[in-house]
Amino acid sequence: MQLSSHLLVGARAVPGANGAIRATNPATGETLEPAFGGATLDDLDQACALAEQAFDPYRERPPQARAAFLESIAEQLLALGDELVERCVLETGLPRGRIEGERGRTVNQLRLFAAVVRSGDHLDLRIDPAQPGRAPLPRPDLRLRHIPVGPVAVFGASNFPLAFSVAGGDTASALAAGCPVLAKAHSAHPGTSALAGLAIQRAVRDCGMPEGTFSLLFDSGRAVGQALVSDRRIKAVGFTGSRAGGAALMALAAARAEPIPVYAEMSSINPVLLFPHALAARAEEIGKAFAASLTLGVGQFCTNPGLVLALDSADLDTFIDSASTALRAAAAGTMLTAGIAASYRSGVDALAGHAAVATLAQNVHAEGKGAAALFRTTGVAFLADHALHGEVFGPAALLVVCRDMAEMRAVTEVLEGQLTATLQIDADDYAAAMALLPALERKVGRILVNGFPTGVEVSTAMVHGGPFPATSDGRSTSVGTGAISRFLRPVCYQNMPQALLPAVLRDDAMAGSWRRMDGTLAKA
Amino acid sequence: MQLSSHLLVGARAVPGANGAIRATNPATGETLEPAFGGATLDDLDQACALAEQAFDPYRERPPQARAAFLESIAEQLLALGDELVERCVLETGLPRGRIEGERGRTVNQLRLFAAVVRSGDHLDLRIDPAQPGRAPLPRPDLRLRHIPVGPVAVFGASNFPLAFSVAGGDTASALAAGCPVLAKAHSAHPGTSALAGLAIQRAVRDCGMPEGTFSLLFDSGRAVGQALVSDRRIKAVGFTGSRAGGAALMALAAARAEPIPVYAEMSSINPVLLFPHALAARAEEIGKAFAASLTLGVGQFCTNPGLVLALDSADLDTFIDSASTALRAAAAGTMLTAGIAASYRSGVDALAGHAAVATLAQNVHAEGKGAAALFRTTGVAFLADHALHGEVFGPAALLVVCRDMAEMRAVTEVLEGQLTATLQIDADDYAAAMALLPALERKVGRILVNGFPTGVEVSTAMVHGGPFPATSDGRSTSVGTGAISRFLRPVCYQNMPQALLPAVLRDDAMAGSWRRMDGTLAKA
Repeated sequence: MQLSSHLLVGARAVPGANGAIRATNPATGETLEPAFGGATLDDLDQACALAEQAFDPYRERPPQARAAFLESIAEQLLALGDELVERCVLETGLPRGRIEGERGRTVNQLRLFAAVVRSGDHLDLRIDPAQPGRAPLPRPDLRLRHIPVGPVAVFGASNFPLAFSVAGGDTASALAAGCPVLAKAHSAHPGTSALAGLAIQRAVRDCGMPEGTFSLLFDSGRAVGQALVSDRRIKAVGFTGSRAGGAALMALAAARAEPIPVYAEMSSINPVLLFPHALAARAEEIGKAFAASLTLGVGQFCTNPGLVLALDSADLDTFIDSASTALRAAAAGTMLTAGIAASYRSGVDALAGHAAVATLAQNVHAEGKGAAALFRTTGVAFLADHALHGEVFGPAALLVVCRDMAEMRAVTEVLEGQLTATLQIDADDYAAAMALLPALERKVGRILVNGFPTGVEVSTAMVHGGPFPATSDGRSTSVGTGAISRFLRPVCYQNMPQALLPAVLRDDAMAGSWRRMDGTLAKA
Repeated sequence: MQLSSHLLVGARAVPGANGAIRATNPATGETLEPAFGGATLDDLDQACALAEQAFDPYRERPPQARAAFLESIAEQLLALGDELVERCVLETGLPRGRIEGERGRTVNQLRLFAAVVRSGDHLDLRIDPAQPGRAPLPRPDLRLRHIPVGPVAVFGASNFPLAFSVAGGDTASALAAGCPVLAKAHSAHPGTSALAGLAIQRAVRDCGMPEGTFSLLFDSGRAVGQALVSDRRIKAVGFTGSRAGGAALMALAAARAEPIPVYAEMSSINPVLLFPHALAARAEEIGKAFAASLTLGVGQFCTNPGLVLALDSADLDTFIDSASTALRAAAAGTMLTAGIAASYRSGVDALAGHAAVATLAQNVHAEGKGAAALFRTTGVAFLADHALHGEVFGPAALLVVCRDMAEMRAVTEVLEGQLTATLQIDADDYAAAMALLPALERKVGRILVNGFPTGVEVSTAMVHGGPFPATSDGRSTSVGTGAISRFLRPVCYQNMPQALLPAVLRDDAMAGSWRRMDGTLAKA
């Protein structure tokens, strides 16, 4: 047994003296041992001081060393073995297969960022050679690289206890960028967090990184998390969670003497647009696949398809029958926490009780479980009532039946920012889809065709982001290699002697890295 | 005479009915004709509506067309001929040669962004081809491009009436990105703004761009500018000006239902670090060059060197003598506005009256003019009093004499974010400079060696940015090709049929554009 209930402050394990956090098994309601001690503001101060000290040495470690460190974290996560998987199952109610899959994703994510670090692509190197003879004024030698912003605070998500938590995407991309990380453990899975933190702490030690490269804090309330975002030594924030939580962090960050960027992924209802020819060809199949996506992981994905737009037709009725039948057959699943289950129930009750909403399918609730539900309203009603636009986190969706494509476009135009939009289309729908694409592009980070939005590839071209409130910063992605850019900023060196230049910008820089030479991409 | 006192609301010229703005010739105090009518909130609403309508068609115009449009703006600016130069001289008190040079820079800037648009580099294209056979799950086809964020509000700077105003860097980069621009004219140079706006309006017409691609608003107070930033149709803000002004726009943008990014360039004292061997070798020369940089344009540059750090020595006395002699010989120059002159005078008086500050050189003030000044304090005093860290906009600098390199480093560490830092070093100073570089990198956007920070190259590798309060967003630059990234965000297309993909992402995309194919840069 490797699990410890202590905070990780740099290289130390510290018993937290500020209240206690206990996990609950959401499947049984049972309280789990041990109690994790909450961090004091003094613990926080020490972790921030260590991170500040670690920043300069950590960021200037050679790319190979930083990449090996990320790979070492992956190895240490795997080395935790079944203890990590079993604890995670206990704390989340998620099935073992899902947790094992998520561990694989988390490990691959760390390895992908190691490859990014080795490539140097994220540095966006640029060299404008001097033009001493230029008239009227000579041009100086100008060289640009990106450097990390500084220590990053990471707030893990409840719904991805590995891939978006302590050793998840925010931590991996921040460490890859060269930023020390201070992770605030999610109170729903403190044991999983402690184990993942231990893996990172071991990798820091094994790879000889400065101890302040990583710390893990438990917070028995909200004061420590808030103080973390407000601490002058923290230079950026990564967060995945509720809209209210993200908004609170944004406000704290904006109110600092030095405002800092917050990357909060918050709220999305992920519209699915069903086009007439696609429905005519395969309404039943689309209905089944939709129900499978809606109920995957008890609907607890950021990309859960919570909104369906379609025109009225007999084919739509076939879709409704197919989806409803599949949803009625889906067993209610254990939700991540009692709070999420209660919030889901109240969201479903609000839809069911809305005067302009009809219930198409609704399974019976059970304590702590989320039962699938499908509701129906009209385009007119949706346009009239913003209350219908909010996220109901869980396996519920609202079908908005539109009078015509113009009304579907109008509905699209009033949507808030989204992570995804999905088109179900056949070739004969292309013209109609094309007319909607500009509006969709303005609203979302990813547009999918003939698939469903759950399932987010970790790769180079992925965007898991989108305009507010999908995220706090629609210029970024939190999944895929682009996530590293969130934690970087450019620095230009003018007429800097070779001896003082960063190694990657010297004339004798290691061959193979890409750079813009006088504006043109070329390999060094 | 082409000058009109009207607002430009899309293709129309509209007499503003909300108060009047008159320019003053700062050299004579004379009020200049005509009176420019302030925009009403209704004018603003119409301009925003036109910009919203223009966004989709404008952003999807082919790169060649958008590039030609930027070049047409450059041509139209030149075609305004002497009327533009003369009006600009009248409104700013800047000499004709400076204005002609700035016009050249403005024109080149537009042409550089045209080249960027043609290259497509800013789109950061990425393609992860499908892997249908991958286990356990196939990988979908994923393609990424960057799209513009939407209509941008641009607030011009007083100190660069052409290069950072209506047709300046923010406008050029936003239009290049594909964003319509709503420019708020600076009240100190409304005529220059009107003429530059006319050039853009003509280019919109000649190139067949949607009329809402550009509008120009005058504001007789602050209400119109504030309403502009708060308007839901505006998706980003570019601003160059005071710290208070930038902070006000940041607060407005953060308080919106949909918060938006603000790129405000605000405040920087641009430390110059004099190292012992460099001083020993060429103290007199450095003093002269420093004085020339400090007084260039009456010190009204964002990169004006307002802070000098050095160790006490006989060589430093030589520097002081040389700089003071040159500064005493510099005639007081007309400042841009009476307000700037008054604010400069009060900043200089505060330094002169500070108990821990000695005056080394101070020329006699004259009404509306800025006289050079050089002050001296100690590292201890500077560390103790944050009031000494603020920007005094104009030709004044504070020399901080440090006890040793450790104290110089301590001073560096307490500085706020800066646009630039300058090192005066010889080879024997390299080791000492290297010890300070990490701290400087954390504070600034550009580090110069053996030059002076005034003079900002418009090129690929330039960074005109830096941590707060140098700018509101240290992840960006407002000068150089990188400025376009401020107005872009990524969108991913998953399994999108070729027919629906943006042209640049199709398999048959025009040869020659760079893209990341499965993570590796290659030409299409």
